[in-house]
Amino acid sequence: MSDLRFPTRTLWPDADRRSIHVIDQAALPHDFRVLRISSLEEAVSAIREMRVRGAPLIGVTAAYGLALAIKEHDALEGAIARLEAARPTAVNLHWALARMRARVESLDALENRAEAAWIEAGRIAEEDVDQCRRIGEHGLAVLKSLAANKSRRLEIMTHCNAGALATIEHGTAISPIYAGVSAGVDLHVWVSETRPRNQGLLTAWELRQRGVPYTVFADNAAGHLLSRGGIDAVIVGADRVAANGDVANKIGTRLKALAALDAGVPFFVAAPRSSFDFSRADGEDIPIEERSGDELRTLSGLDADGVVKSFRLLPADAPVFNPAFDLTPGEHVTAFITEHGVCRPDALPSFFDANDHA
Amino acid sequence: MSDLRFPTRTLWPDADRRSIHVIDQAALPHDFRVLRISSLEEAVSAIREMRVRGAPLIGVTAAYGLALAIKEHDALEGAIARLEAARPTAVNLHWALARMRARVESLDALENRAEAAWIEAGRIAEEDVDQCRRIGEHGLAVLKSLAANKSRRLEIMTHCNAGALATIEHGTAISPIYAGVSAGVDLHVWVSETRPRNQGLLTAWELRQRGVPYTVFADNAAGHLLSRGGIDAVIVGADRVAANGDVANKIGTRLKALAALDAGVPFFVAAPRSSFDFSRADGEDIPIEERSGDELRTLSGLDADGVVKSFRLLPADAPVFNPAFDLTPGEHVTAFITEHGVCRPDALPSFFDANDHA
Repeated sequence: MSDLRFPTRTLWPDADRRSIHVIDQAALPHDFRVLRISSLEEAVSAIREMRVRGAPLIGVTAAYGLALAIKEHDALEGAIARLEAARPTAVNLHWALARMRARVESLDALENRAEAAWIEAGRIAEEDVDQCRRIGEHGLAVLKSLAANKSRRLEIMTHCNAGALATIEHGTAISPIYAGVSAGVDLHVWVSETRPRNQGLLTAWELRQRGVPYTVFADNAAGHLLSRGGIDAVIVGADRVAANGDVANKIGTRLKALAALDAGVPFFVAAPRSSFDFSRADGEDIPIEERSGDELRTLSGLDADGVVKSFRLLPADAPVFNPAFDLTPGEHVTAFITEHGVCRPDALPSFFDANDHA
Repeated sequence: MSDLRFPTRTLWPDADRRSIHVIDQAALPHDFRVLRISSLEEAVSAIREMRVRGAPLIGVTAAYGLALAIKEHDALEGAIARLEAARPTAVNLHWALARMRARVESLDALENRAEAAWIEAGRIAEEDVDQCRRIGEHGLAVLKSLAANKSRRLEIMTHCNAGALATIEHGTAISPIYAGVSAGVDLHVWVSETRPRNQGLLTAWELRQRGVPYTVFADNAAGHLLSRGGIDAVIVGADRVAANGDVANKIGTRLKALAALDAGVPFFVAAPRSSFDFSRADGEDIPIEERSGDELRTLSGLDADGVVKSFRLLPADAPVFNPAFDLTPGEHVTAFITEHGVCRPDALPSFFDANDHA
């Protein structure tokens, strides 16, 4: 866990419009590296290898990847297909690419397309910052309501990393936490390790940098933690939400939702409109990405000299099943925290219609 | 994961009665080492450091530890107290020590006590082997009933290691698996990694050695695996079972029980009579051991040269919560598989009374 400072944002477009820079999240929390992406293929690799991760950040990276492809005169549909195939579950990627396509396909001149694409990707990034900030504001109201009449600090559980690192800035599930800390709400965050890729350590890293009190626990301990009392809410992000509120999110979310339901602890999902896929009535057919078993067979850590190394936990031929996401039934979600406000699952999708036209 | 062969047993008393040898399970699966225990303190350390682990094996090791203490003229009650404090949750340890106390305290001469203690510890070990074998037989009937009318192999999920390594021989939850394979039942085992100490890798190691097909998955994936269908049963061990069937077992058991309940998959607990503590009406007050946060901050694995190393995942001062066990409500247990047969939770504890007197 590097003590290098987390910059304000996770992605910076370069002034010459030839590349973007991103934080290499595959190196975190052990090493802080910045990665330059200057082509479609580099964008595809960064998304596939999870050097950028988190549904909103994947969407913005894909938008810039497409802008770079257009600049290099790559065929539009081929480039979109390459990016869409990089990660199948998060819908923000599809959403961002559909928006990019709509923006550029009406333009004839390649130069116009390239400029329009770059500007549109930048707009998507700025909107993400604004949406996440508003998720924080609406989530703050939820936290304040949970904190009312409590004589102790608020105890919030989260899973994976739905923090600033998963977005351009602020985060989704963690944005209310940051808003709460800024507003003086006394709170503490329970961070699940999130095997196999340990994104909980990314959450611990960013909370530590911002001075937010946290405790890490093994994913297995979520049932014990919730059942013994003292957790006031679970807040997670989402990779894709169906019309009935079914949530595809990081593997392990479903277990935490079941344990929260069993313990009577409210379970919130924080996500921008771009994570909702109302073309799906329910979550049954959302593609669940299966990743390499090497994510379980090996793990990165620091050796005795503080050097980042990959260590082997299982033989290279050990049979492994590694789904990256699971599905949480919408009926187990207490409410969605979105940039438009807080919405119960049975009020989807008309909640957004009402707000989109507001 | 060493390819060295797993011997028949996990613990061998030496012929001169001055020591026992055990498999050092803190080194597995990366390294196969045998550890000599020749004093009370070495027994206490081996149990506390989880070099021996699994409720039944802890009980037998404690019995031999007490026999070694008596041989060295240590005070009986002091030695019992030292051993009992080594691991608080598993009741087999208390059960074995109570039995040892009852055997020796009526004898006056120290030589008689020492001999009687050594013989009694040996009896406990032999009975454990026999009990585990019988758990396998009764569990086999369960597996055969689950396999009836199935056109595909049986899919069994387990958690932690309740295999041969957790006992003297055969195992508890895994004993029915071995019995099934011997009887020609076509089956496959889903092995949870079991963070933070990764005892699932011990289960993978012993299944691999015996040629039983298995697949390892991250604990987080249990909800997805159970909900997508295709898992026929979950079978776990137990560290302590209360009169109402509440089960204290390895952290993460509760989440798997909730997910099995949600998916309509039967959830079995395999354990010998010595793991049942009917002095407790329910599990509420069973002490839940909290272990060092270093179990989450660091992890052992093989480096690029195949050397076992400890590597760091979190800073030494990162706040960590590390409970080693959790409680699964008895009402979520489909049935207990014991050496006396299969018993529904609401039939406890009279089931054992009937069988003890049979």
